[in-house]
Amino acid sequence: METHQSQQPGQTLNGAESLVKTLLACGVDTCFANPGTSEMHFVAALDRIPGMRCVLGLFEGVVTGAADGYARMADKPAATLLHCGPGLANGLANLHNARRAQTPIVNIIGDQATYHRPLDAPLTADTEGWARPVSVWTRTAQRADQVGADAAAAVQAACAAPGGVASLILPSDVCWDEGGRVAAPLPPLAAPKVSPDAIEQAARWLRSGQPTLLVLAGTALREAPLADAHRIAAATDARLITPMSNARVSRGRGRFAVERVPYSGDAARAKLAGIRQVILVGAPPPVTFFAYPGKSPRPYPEDAQIHVLARPEQDLADALARLADALGAPAVPVPDGATPAVAPAGLAKGAVTSEAVAQTLSALLPEQAVVVEESVSFGRAFYPGTLHAAPHDWLQLTGGAIGAGLPLAVGAAVAVPDRRVVALQADGSGMYTVQSLWTMAREQLDVTVVVLANRKYAILLGELAGVGANPGKTALDMLDIGNPDLDWVKLAAGMGVEGARAVDMESFADLFAMANKRKGPFLIELVI
Amino acid sequence: METHQSQQPGQTLNGAESLVKTLLACGVDTCFANPGTSEMHFVAALDRIPGMRCVLGLFEGVVTGAADGYARMADKPAATLLHCGPGLANGLANLHNARRAQTPIVNIIGDQATYHRPLDAPLTADTEGWARPVSVWTRTAQRADQVGADAAAAVQAACAAPGGVASLILPSDVCWDEGGRVAAPLPPLAAPKVSPDAIEQAARWLRSGQPTLLVLAGTALREAPLADAHRIAAATDARLITPMSNARVSRGRGRFAVERVPYSGDAARAKLAGIRQVILVGAPPPVTFFAYPGKSPRPYPEDAQIHVLARPEQDLADALARLADALGAPAVPVPDGATPAVAPAGLAKGAVTSEAVAQTLSALLPEQAVVVEESVSFGRAFYPGTLHAAPHDWLQLTGGAIGAGLPLAVGAAVAVPDRRVVALQADGSGMYTVQSLWTMAREQLDVTVVVLANRKYAILLGELAGVGANPGKTALDMLDIGNPDLDWVKLAAGMGVEGARAVDMESFADLFAMANKRKGPFLIELVI
Repeated sequence: METHQSQQPGQTLNGAESLVKTLLACGVDTCFANPGTSEMHFVAALDRIPGMRCVLGLFEGVVTGAADGYARMADKPAATLLHCGPGLANGLANLHNARRAQTPIVNIIGDQATYHRPLDAPLTADTEGWARPVSVWTRTAQRADQVGADAAAAVQAACAAPGGVASLILPSDVCWDEGGRVAAPLPPLAAPKVSPDAIEQAARWLRSGQPTLLVLAGTALREAPLADAHRIAAATDARLITPMSNARVSRGRGRFAVERVPYSGDAARAKLAGIRQVILVGAPPPVTFFAYPGKSPRPYPEDAQIHVLARPEQDLADALARLADALGAPAVPVPDGATPAVAPAGLAKGAVTSEAVAQTLSALLPEQAVVVEESVSFGRAFYPGTLHAAPHDWLQLTGGAIGAGLPLAVGAAVAVPDRRVVALQADGSGMYTVQSLWTMAREQLDVTVVVLANRKYAILLGELAGVGANPGKTALDMLDIGNPDLDWVKLAAGMGVEGARAVDMESFADLFAMANKRKGPFLIELVI
Repeated sequence: METHQSQQPGQTLNGAESLVKTLLACGVDTCFANPGTSEMHFVAALDRIPGMRCVLGLFEGVVTGAADGYARMADKPAATLLHCGPGLANGLANLHNARRAQTPIVNIIGDQATYHRPLDAPLTADTEGWARPVSVWTRTAQRADQVGADAAAAVQAACAAPGGVASLILPSDVCWDEGGRVAAPLPPLAAPKVSPDAIEQAARWLRSGQPTLLVLAGTALREAPLADAHRIAAATDARLITPMSNARVSRGRGRFAVERVPYSGDAARAKLAGIRQVILVGAPPPVTFFAYPGKSPRPYPEDAQIHVLARPEQDLADALARLADALGAPAVPVPDGATPAVAPAGLAKGAVTSEAVAQTLSALLPEQAVVVEESVSFGRAFYPGTLHAAPHDWLQLTGGAIGAGLPLAVGAAVAVPDRRVVALQADGSGMYTVQSLWTMAREQLDVTVVVLANRKYAILLGELAGVGANPGKTALDMLDIGNPDLDWVKLAAGMGVEGARAVDMESFADLFAMANKRKGPFLIELVI
C-alpha cells in the first residue's frame, strides 16, 4: 500500500486519523453526521485534522438524504457518519432513494469494537445485513493499519459509474488502535463507452421507421446529452421520455425539455400507446410504481421490442453524442420559451391550485435555482408548468421512500452555496424528516421551503377510491392527517427557522419572492 | 386448516379480509399504522370489518415503538401496518428495541404484488432481508387462501415465550385476491418450566456460601417474582440485580426494589467486585454497553462462574418461586418506604438537578403511572430516587436505539387508558420520533411528556472527554444541539399538543401536578 504524502514519515496515527486523512486525500471534504459513543475517536480525529466540513443532523434520515442531495449537486460524494446498526437503520430509507438515484455516498457506520460484537450488547445489530441491500460495496474494517485503504476503496466504489452507496462499517477499536496508514486515492472507475457496434445497431433501429421511444435517465438528463437526444429525435421522429422520478434534470429557459412517464398506469399506457420499440439509455424498462388488479405493470405495448443503447454504468452522454453523429443529425435550436403560448404568464392570483403555483414558480424561480420536489399528489402541474422558468436543476424522490425532500435540500444547499434551493414539499412526507429544518437553521442554508399543506395523505385517498366502495371512518382516519392540523410555522419556529403562512396566490408570491432574496432558510406553509 | 367461526359458510373474502378477521380471532385488536398504496386493500378491509382500533403515526418509528409500548403494558401484541421495505426500514430502530425487550409484535409490512416484485419498481427493496435481523419469525405471504393461516402463525410466533417480533410481509395481490380463509388461533407456546434438577442445582450454588449475584430480567421483574427473588436473597445473602435497561419493572411503594447494573463500566465493575458466581434468570451475562480501550467488556470478575437458572424463554416466575421454596426461604416484608430515611421529601425547590426532579417525581407521580424513561444522561437520579413513589411501572429504552421514549408512551397510553403515562424524555433522543406528539394529540392520550432540555448530546460529551484531549470546535459542534435552541413548546403546539416551559423546580412541580390531572397530553419543557 502506497502511503500518501499527507502522512509525514514517522508520524503516528490512529485508525480514525488515517481514515480522515484518506478521505480528504480522496477529495471527500464534507461529512453529514449523527455520531454516537462508538464514533468518539472519529469525532476526535475530525477535530484534530482540519479540512472536513461536518454538518450535524438530528436524525439519520436527514444525514443520509443530505448526503444524497449533496452528491447530486456536487458530483462527488460526501461521507456520512452514523451510529451502529440502528443509526444506519434510521438512514436506510433515504439510502434506498440514493441507491435509486445512483448517488455516490461514502456511508460510514461506527459500530461495536471487533471483540465486543460477539458479546451482543444491547445496541449490537446486523449492521452489515442492513447495509448490503442499499450498497454497491459493503465492508467492515478490521484493523487500524488497513482502514485507510478501506476508505480509499470505499470512495472508488461509490464513484464507480453510475455511482452508489459504499458502506464502510467502522468498529471502534479500528478507530482507536494506533498504526493508521493514510492511503492514496485509487484510480477512478469511469463509465466505459458503448461499443461502435452498439451505436450502429441503435442507428439501424432508429432508421427502421418503427414508432420508437428513447428512455433517458441518469447523467443523460444533463444539458448537453439532452441536446444530443433532441438531435436524434428531430432526425428520426423518435420520442424522448424519462422515468417519472429522476435524480437531477437540467432544465428551464434555453434548455431542451423531456416529458416523464406519468405516475398513473392508465395515463402512462395511453401516452406510450403505439410504441413499437423502446431504446434504453441508462434507464430500466418503464414499469408502473405499483401493480393494480387486472392491469399490466408495463406501461408500453406488450409486443414492443426492448433495446439497450447504454447501460446505466456506461457513458451516456458519449453514447448519445455518437449516435446523433452516426445518424447525421444536425443540431436543433432550443424551442423558444418566449413565445406567448409557453412564456410565463406572470403571477397567478386568487385560489391556490397546482397550476397557479406552477405559474408563480415559473415567474419567480431564481436563476440557477435547485428545485427539490417531493410534492406527491398536489404537484402534478409543477414540472410541466415550470419548463420555461429560469434555468434550474430539478431533484426528485427517486425511490418512493417519502421523507427525502427536506434532507435533499439540506445537502444541495451545502454543495452549491451560491445557488438558491427551493424545496416543494408535501406535508405528510415532510413530517418524516422534519428535523431537517434545524440543520437548515444551524448552517444558515439558503433554502426556501414551500410546504404544500393539504393535511391528508391525498395520494392514498385516490388509491383507496381505486380499490372500490365508499371509504368509511376507519379508512378515512388512516389517510387524514388534519386531526389535529399541523402548524408548520410553529414547527419551523421550534427549530429556529422563520416562516409564514400563505392562503392565496398573492400572499404566496409575496412570501416566495421575499424568501428567495434572504440569506438563510425560510418556510412558507401554503395551505392548499 | 380449520376455518374459524367468524367466517360464515359460503362467505367470500379477499385475502385482506381474512387477515383482519384472523387477527381479531387471535385477540389482536389494535393496529398502529402508516399505510401506503400497497396496503389500500388492507385499509379497506379494516374499514369494512369492525373491531380493530387503528392508530395512525406520521412516521414508522412512531408506529413500531408504539406497538412495543402497547404490548409491554397490554401483555399481548398489537399489529403494525408499514409500507414496503423503506417503511419497514424507518421502523427498524424501534423494532430493534422491541427485540431487546422481547416484546410480542405482529409486524405487518405491505409490499409489491408477488408478480410486480421482479420488475424492480422504484420502491422495491429487500423487505425480508431488512426484517429478519429484528424478527423471531419472518414470512412473505404468497396466496390469499393462506394469508389467514400466515397471520395465525405470526401471532403464535410473536407470543411464544419470551415474545418477539413476527414479521409478515403482505404482497398487495395476496390482499386483493379472493378466496381468503379465516384461520383459527393456534395454541399458545407458553414458557416451559425449568427442570427440578435446575432448581436443585441452583439451590446448591446458593448454599455454597460464595458471593453470588442473581441477574433478573424480563418477566422476573413483575411484582410477584421480585418478591420471590427477595425471599431467595434474604435466605442466602445473594445479591439481586437487573440489566441497566429493562422492558418493564413493577416498582414503587409496597413493592420490592432491585438495583440495576450501572451504565458506566467502571461503576459496574466496582459494584460487582468480589462476586464469585453469577446466576442468570432470563438475563444474558452482564456486558458493558460499549467497549473502551484497555477495559474489560464484562463488569463482573473474570473468574466468576456463570450459571443459568432459567433461560429467557422459560417460566421465570415459576423458577424463582420454586427455588425460594427449595431453599425454604420464608416470605420477607417489603422494606418500609414510610421511614424518614427513604420517604419522599416533598417537593424540591430551586435549581433543576437530576436529584431534585427525582424528588418531585417521587412526590407527585400518580398511582399506577406508567413511567417511560429515555432520560439518557440527566436521568441518573430518577430510578433510584423514585423507589418510594406511588406504585408504577417503569419502561426503558432496551436496545440503545434512541427515539423509543415518545412512541413507547403512545403505545402504553393506548394499552392502559385508565393509567397516566409519564414520559421522561431527553431532548436529543426525543427529536428522533418527535412526530409521536401528533398521535398523542389525535388520540387524546393521557400522557405527560417531560422534555429534559439540556440542548446537547450530553452523554457524548462525557464519552468524548474519555477519549482524551480538550475537544475543539468541530467536535463540540457535533455534540451541541443548542445552535439553534429547540423550542419544544412550539414543536408541541405545531402538532396540537399544549405545553409550557419550566425553568425551576417550583414551576416544574406546578406544571407536572396540573398536567397529570388533565385529560389528554401535555408537554413540559424542563430547561436543565
